[in-house]
Amino acid sequence: MKIKVAGIGLTKFGELWDKSLLDLALEASLDAIKDAKIDKNKIDAVFVGNMLIGKIAGQDHLGPVVTSSLGLSSASFRIEGACASGGLAVHLAIQGILAGTYKNVLVVGAEKMTDAPAGQITWALMGASSSQERKAGLTFPALYALIAEAHMQKYGTTRKQLAEVSVKNHYHASLNKKAQYPFEITVEKVLQSGLVSSPISLLDCSPITDGAAAVILSADDSSKGVFITGSAVACDTIDLAQRESLTELKATKLAATVAFKQAGLGIEDIKIAEVHDCFTIGEILAMEDLGFCPKGEGGKFIASKATGLGGRCPVNTSGGLKACGHPVGATGVKQIIEITEQLRQTAGLRQVKDANCGLTQNVGGTGATVVVHVLQN
Amino acid sequence: MKIKVAGIGLTKFGELWDKSLLDLALEASLDAIKDAKIDKNKIDAVFVGNMLIGKIAGQDHLGPVVTSSLGLSSASFRIEGACASGGLAVHLAIQGILAGTYKNVLVVGAEKMTDAPAGQITWALMGASSSQERKAGLTFPALYALIAEAHMQKYGTTRKQLAEVSVKNHYHASLNKKAQYPFEITVEKVLQSGLVSSPISLLDCSPITDGAAAVILSADDSSKGVFITGSAVACDTIDLAQRESLTELKATKLAATVAFKQAGLGIEDIKIAEVHDCFTIGEILAMEDLGFCPKGEGGKFIASKATGLGGRCPVNTSGGLKACGHPVGATGVKQIIEITEQLRQTAGLRQVKDANCGLTQNVGGTGATVVVHVLQN
Repeated sequence: MKIKVAGIGLTKFGELWDKSLLDLALEASLDAIKDAKIDKNKIDAVFVGNMLIGKIAGQDHLGPVVTSSLGLSSASFRIEGACASGGLAVHLAIQGILAGTYKNVLVVGAEKMTDAPAGQITWALMGASSSQERKAGLTFPALYALIAEAHMQKYGTTRKQLAEVSVKNHYHASLNKKAQYPFEITVEKVLQSGLVSSPISLLDCSPITDGAAAVILSADDSSKGVFITGSAVACDTIDLAQRESLTELKATKLAATVAFKQAGLGIEDIKIAEVHDCFTIGEILAMEDLGFCPKGEGGKFIASKATGLGGRCPVNTSGGLKACGHPVGATGVKQIIEITEQLRQTAGLRQVKDANCGLTQNVGGTGATVVVHVLQN
Repeated sequence: MKIKVAGIGLTKFGELWDKSLLDLALEASLDAIKDAKIDKNKIDAVFVGNMLIGKIAGQDHLGPVVTSSLGLSSASFRIEGACASGGLAVHLAIQGILAGTYKNVLVVGAEKMTDAPAGQITWALMGASSSQERKAGLTFPALYALIAEAHMQKYGTTRKQLAEVSVKNHYHASLNKKAQYPFEITVEKVLQSGLVSSPISLLDCSPITDGAAAVILSADDSSKGVFITGSAVACDTIDLAQRESLTELKATKLAATVAFKQAGLGIEDIKIAEVHDCFTIGEILAMEDLGFCPKGEGGKFIASKATGLGGRCPVNTSGGLKACGHPVGATGVKQIIEITEQLRQTAGLRQVKDANCGLTQNVGGTGATVVVHVLQN
């Protein structure tokens, strides 16, 4: 499998009061088209990753909304898989290219979350969980708190280790102009921030964000560039209560195994990764389930600085969901963009030296959907 | 392109008060798995077509909801493109198979519409239109009424001709046990039914429906069976006001051209078709835009009985959206099932003699998305 990331476009992430979802999607898309130096009429399919716009603004049918606004009549699709919507859109776009049906595809993930009142956005986001969980009054911080608590009890993971994830990702974000929170924080500040759902405090949580991310993917046999060489999706029960284990995301393991096999390499080859740190425990699980460290040692692994800039394998150099921001439908596409920047050696102050192979892990809900991509030079 | 329709499963369409969306999706899926005589563990991807469940019941992330309920951990996706969600799901499943990524794919379209109060379902459905149209107070009957009025003024199409579509499709539905309205009506009855939005009366409109439809698609080089040989998607502006013409769906023409090219045949080869008669004018447009008759002559063509059972090319033998019912996310998959039944010669009282080549046309909104499939023996 050899799919070229021919162009990338990313808006600022944050509270963007003066821009609509369509404004953001078009800004990212046009930047990606410009970056790819492609005639937009050569785009033969558009995949839009979005979770919430139907519920927040009543606008479904987002594929043709974006596509026709670009002046195109091409095939267009809206893909929804909660916070993995963007990653799923990338995966399906790749299938269309591998099938030979499409040559140049625009994938744009976009979300406008700050327009909605807090109650509405919470209701909208909870659509990613099960009806039983909703009836029980569990919100996403509470669901991830159950996972974190189980991980702490089973493996001795500490709140300080959780906080280290946030501190690292805020440091990375401080080097990223597109980030929602481009400033550093300390472990003490995380531990002292208000408890949202024990053991998760406010600064363990990713924010509500507006933003869009777009890539042009192309069939391209040339040797130069950044290529997606692995793309896999797996699922698990949507209900946490029905899982075999609370302390791992089975779908991460399943998807990673397939993606590595497609790419013909293993975790030891990965020099850089963007993973789904919607809550700090999410990044710890990702480290373990992707195979960066043994099960249960994710907290120690992160505290060892192995995944910070300058470490063995920097993780979430963009700032991650925590500090770069988490416009849910855009996140999976933004992850591809950050790895592409790193592999192009254009990541500026965040550049990881000699990065030539990277990975993205995008999670929907509490792990009911996981998408893993492998990118190589 | 040779994708086998290896199995089909269809629930009763109607007001199914005692069944949830998941009940319906699982019933259709298990029937399709049984019909395909396949071990369910050999299914390596699940595509769910659904438009409304997030807005009506708060449940998004439907891919893993369905997939894990089947006991699978495979890749799973929810595809949304308004009333074309089902057709888009079929198209994307085909891409995954052609790519070589998936071998056996379950596509299930499902919708539970009758649980919601009328105001909520109208709001939810209007997500398929543009924000300008919503602000103007236009509902879908009103949007299609604008199209019908323009067609009547430009081509002399009559309300009686519109009514003929409904009469034909109700007759077909009277032969279909799965249909929501399996009874005959008359032209007079249509003309006397309450005006919803002039010139569209109640019996020109497809209903609010619960139901699910599932197919197993497989990579299969054998010569026996029903195969999808063309699959194409095109889009247009979501706003009617921005279109070049009110009296044609450009996306139908674009998608049909590509699908015919893929299949290596033309409209003259089509022996049977299922088209998107959400309102009776929709079937008239489809006849013209697919090329069954010249532009402007769709009304006369249908009144000539050419598209009734026994005619030159029977259209909507299932009863169509009008009389079989229109659970929006399921419709595009149900169309594939009806053509498959006909090509298998298992359509019972609705059987079209010597049917060996059929077409489906699935529309989202007022034509912002159109999906065309060609099926052959």
